[in-house]
Amino acid sequence: MTIQSVSESRRHFLASAASLLAAVQLPVASAQEATGEPVANANDDPLPSWNKCAARTDILDFVACATDADCPNFIPPAERIAVFDNDGTLWCEQPVYVQMQFVFDRVRQQAAQHPEWKTAEPFAAVLRHDIKALAAAGEKGMLQLLAATHTGMTTADFEQIVTQWLATARHPKFDRPYTELVYQPMLEVLAFLRSKGFKAYIVSGGGIEFMRPFTERVYGIPPEQVIGSSGKLKYELRDAEPVLMRLAELDFVDDKTGKPVGIQKLIGRRPVFAFGNSDGDYEMLRWTTAGKGSRIGLIVHHTDAEREYAYDRDSHVGRLARALDEAPDRGWSVVDMRRDWKTIFPPVAK
Amino acid sequence: MTIQSVSESRRHFLASAASLLAAVQLPVASAQEATGEPVANANDDPLPSWNKCAARTDILDFVACATDADCPNFIPPAERIAVFDNDGTLWCEQPVYVQMQFVFDRVRQQAAQHPEWKTAEPFAAVLRHDIKALAAAGEKGMLQLLAATHTGMTTADFEQIVTQWLATARHPKFDRPYTELVYQPMLEVLAFLRSKGFKAYIVSGGGIEFMRPFTERVYGIPPEQVIGSSGKLKYELRDAEPVLMRLAELDFVDDKTGKPVGIQKLIGRRPVFAFGNSDGDYEMLRWTTAGKGSRIGLIVHHTDAEREYAYDRDSHVGRLARALDEAPDRGWSVVDMRRDWKTIFPPVAK
Repeated sequence: MTIQSVSESRRHFLASAASLLAAVQLPVASAQEATGEPVANANDDPLPSWNKCAARTDILDFVACATDADCPNFIPPAERIAVFDNDGTLWCEQPVYVQMQFVFDRVRQQAAQHPEWKTAEPFAAVLRHDIKALAAAGEKGMLQLLAATHTGMTTADFEQIVTQWLATARHPKFDRPYTELVYQPMLEVLAFLRSKGFKAYIVSGGGIEFMRPFTERVYGIPPEQVIGSSGKLKYELRDAEPVLMRLAELDFVDDKTGKPVGIQKLIGRRPVFAFGNSDGDYEMLRWTTAGKGSRIGLIVHHTDAEREYAYDRDSHVGRLARALDEAPDRGWSVVDMRRDWKTIFPPVAK
Repeated sequence: MTIQSVSESRRHFLASAASLLAAVQLPVASAQEATGEPVANANDDPLPSWNKCAARTDILDFVACATDADCPNFIPPAERIAVFDNDGTLWCEQPVYVQMQFVFDRVRQQAAQHPEWKTAEPFAAVLRHDIKALAAAGEKGMLQLLAATHTGMTTADFEQIVTQWLATARHPKFDRPYTELVYQPMLEVLAFLRSKGFKAYIVSGGGIEFMRPFTERVYGIPPEQVIGSSGKLKYELRDAEPVLMRLAELDFVDDKTGKPVGIQKLIGRRPVFAFGNSDGDYEMLRWTTAGKGSRIGLIVHHTDAEREYAYDRDSHVGRLARALDEAPDRGWSVVDMRRDWKTIFPPVAK
């Protein structure tokens, strides 16, 4: 794992990741049956899970004008690019990023093949559930855990590992698969934009290959519309068959100032619509809304301690301060989750 | 320009680039009017510029089955990903890559602001048209030229520079803008695939931001479906406005083994259709056709010295040897340009 040339954003990303260790919980097994494929409602009201609120009006007005050739803010279909953060914007990111929970579960699953982990940090800390030691392992420890759980296999093998984990892991508070803890009001926004000729991308600090296995099924967003952090890949022949190996070297961190860069790398044009929930999305919101013509920036503010979680400027996960403070002056709409959303998650299947 | 950690593929790419200097020619000014937007024919015959040949039959058969739900080789629309090399596959790459000609023209255009270039190599060599000295400057010289012409400006400024250059530069042999020296039979393949629900990507060793300004207009391929080599980008504020600066540091070389990697980075799934013309496309063809289910790999063989150029295993540009040799065993179709294509380029507008 190369850690010499840690860039500023990468350092920040990893430091945040390490600090999350304080919030780790174990997934709780459960036999409860639940729906695997929440689907957005397609009634006359395109956003039925939204209460009447400023953000809802802003979305509807923006889309109405963007798709009306007679409107001065009309946007040609090819330029209808929308970007969404994932953690905390499309699905629940508390009490710890889903991908972080995957890391800890994978370490425990792989421990039998690694007897040395019983005494080697940071692996030993994961195995004995020692949050304090994990936090102390810091960035270097986090890189070791990522290398051990995310690299050294083919892209196809990693996809299968993620898919299997997502099929069985459950959220500690809600006791449902993580892929069901997506926000129903946001599924409706995605479906509404799609119906209006928008192309929606995920632009997440999370791992691109951790998201791609589920985004099409869960969000209707195909793998080619997912942007995220990534490690380097290497083309190789194995038994005369080409494979792509996942190397233990970071390639790109798609967070903060990395988000506009990731957007340019993969999309090559500036979005017109951006939806985030934390200061990690600040630059993406700036970049999107600084473009010429009609633009919209939106922020999910987690205000619902009862139905989900309430957090912002003091949170380890999804810290929201600067973007919230500047939202009024920059014309960004803020969604008050508790007040503006009728429901949070899709209903559990009977 | 960072040249310490030159990877194997990068070294190869740059070495090839340097060797091309031997073939440099200057664009010839001309007042001839020509069409800017060649459009593929949409008659009953989807490939009217193709003579009846094995490659044409292979394309038609593949697409017919891929889009027929009753065919065992049916491909769901979401998986209809097609990848095309650009230089030598979609447009003319002789006598020198178009982007290389851009580099030399830019050096001459910028020379007035750089009096030191009159004596500093490799710039002096470009200014005095000294091909031998340019070749001798090798990889290091090529990196200096790329840094001087491709970096230190915003992405928006670079897009404008490329667009302006493409509007005026002309090919030395054909005396037409480079964007008109695209292959009419390939425009027809692109339009045909599009009409059948395929999503076509460019996967080129050329610079991603050098291609994006023209691919939508010329090929119907939007910027988000262009994959290429790239330099690093940096988000910055200039006069309180966010910009993306192009840094003098290579980020990714999308050539040879880099092509399957670039495909995974940007698309995240394996294509079913690949079209190339050189050994730089070998791994892309292997990766595509090694997938499960129905796949097709095709190669443009430049055999037409009269209407275009004839070259393969001994060429500095677009060397084709291994991919040609292995094509029969691997089931890849080879297009004999002279024999199989009725026309090469779109007609000149009257």
